[in-house]
Amino acid sequence: MKRIAFLLVAVATVAGVVAFTAPASGHADEEAAPISGVTIPPGYRDWRLISVAHEEGKLNDLRAVLGNDVAIRASREGKLPFPDGTIIARLAWSYDPLEESSKAFGHPQTFVAGPPKNGVQFMVKDSRKYASTGGWGFAQFNDGKPADEAVQKTCFPCHETVRARDLVFNHYSP
Amino acid sequence: MKRIAFLLVAVATVAGVVAFTAPASGHADEEAAPISGVTIPPGYRDWRLISVAHEEGKLNDLRAVLGNDVAIRASREGKLPFPDGTIIARLAWSYDPLEESSKAFGHPQTFVAGPPKNGVQFMVKDSRKYASTGGWGFAQFNDGKPADEAVQKTCFPCHETVRARDLVFNHYSP
Repeated sequence: MKRIAFLLVAVATVAGVVAFTAPASGHADEEAAPISGVTIPPGYRDWRLISVAHEEGKLNDLRAVLGNDVAIRASREGKLPFPDGTIIARLAWSYDPLEESSKAFGHPQTFVAGPPKNGVQFMVKDSRKYASTGGWGFAQFNDGKPADEAVQKTCFPCHETVRARDLVFNHYSP
Repeated sequence: MKRIAFLLVAVATVAGVVAFTAPASGHADEEAAPISGVTIPPGYRDWRLISVAHEEGKLNDLRAVLGNDVAIRASREGKLPFPDGTIIARLAWSYDPLEESSKAFGHPQTFVAGPPKNGVQFMVKDSRKYASTGGWGFAQFNDGKPADEAVQKTCFPCHETVRARDLVFNHYSP
């Protein structure tokens, strides 16, 4: 009886985890990106953090790089190349001065994330399927819709500049 | 028999999740911070992302704000005050120009997270225990050790400037 009770608690826990995790980003079955055919991975907003970044100039955003479980494990171990099944997500938001901080300091001191900006990008590792682009399928989505082909074509050449790091710019931040 | 098999799969899944989640930040049983008595919550590095930020000036860092499940749920719903049990973690890393990007653009364009910097901070909501500091217990840890009392004393007055947001600076970034 104790054993059954334990099992039921375990089942309830699993059900709870699934129920709680599901609603975050229900973008399943959406349109595939041109070239790679990558779609928005369901629940990606719940993935764990790899690192953060800031782009100046025209992009002018604050960004977070999240990874699925395969990506997190590989990033922590620092082993290259990333294994098939790795998915890395790059989210970005506008780069906004925090009002209270600007008032307190008399100049912008703290910058926080405003509304989403510059789309959401994904890198999906499948060394056979994406052999011609370094083993990665690239995709950018703006407001949930794939960006056009001209935009998608810019991903690989840019990431190729870090071929020595398996085309991944960010390191895991402990 | 089918039911037992299902239960065993569920147990294995729970065990798997626990086994995979555990090694991230094994800081349990560490020293408590002065004033609040807050200790480093085990596994906080695996928590989900609330938002990101950049501090200029002396702090000069890139930061991520993570939350436990209670914090994530409350942040997404945008309801104030945060419920008891909320824990918010602020991680920070040095603000470093990305070498490849600087070369390509001829000036620093992309800033990425370097080594950890400015400690790790936690806000723990317990409206009774921490009634005298707005319902929050504050703590900063440098290299896994609590910062001294003078540092801990600076948390509450600064966060009090956003009392209308229940002392929390960051919003949830979708």
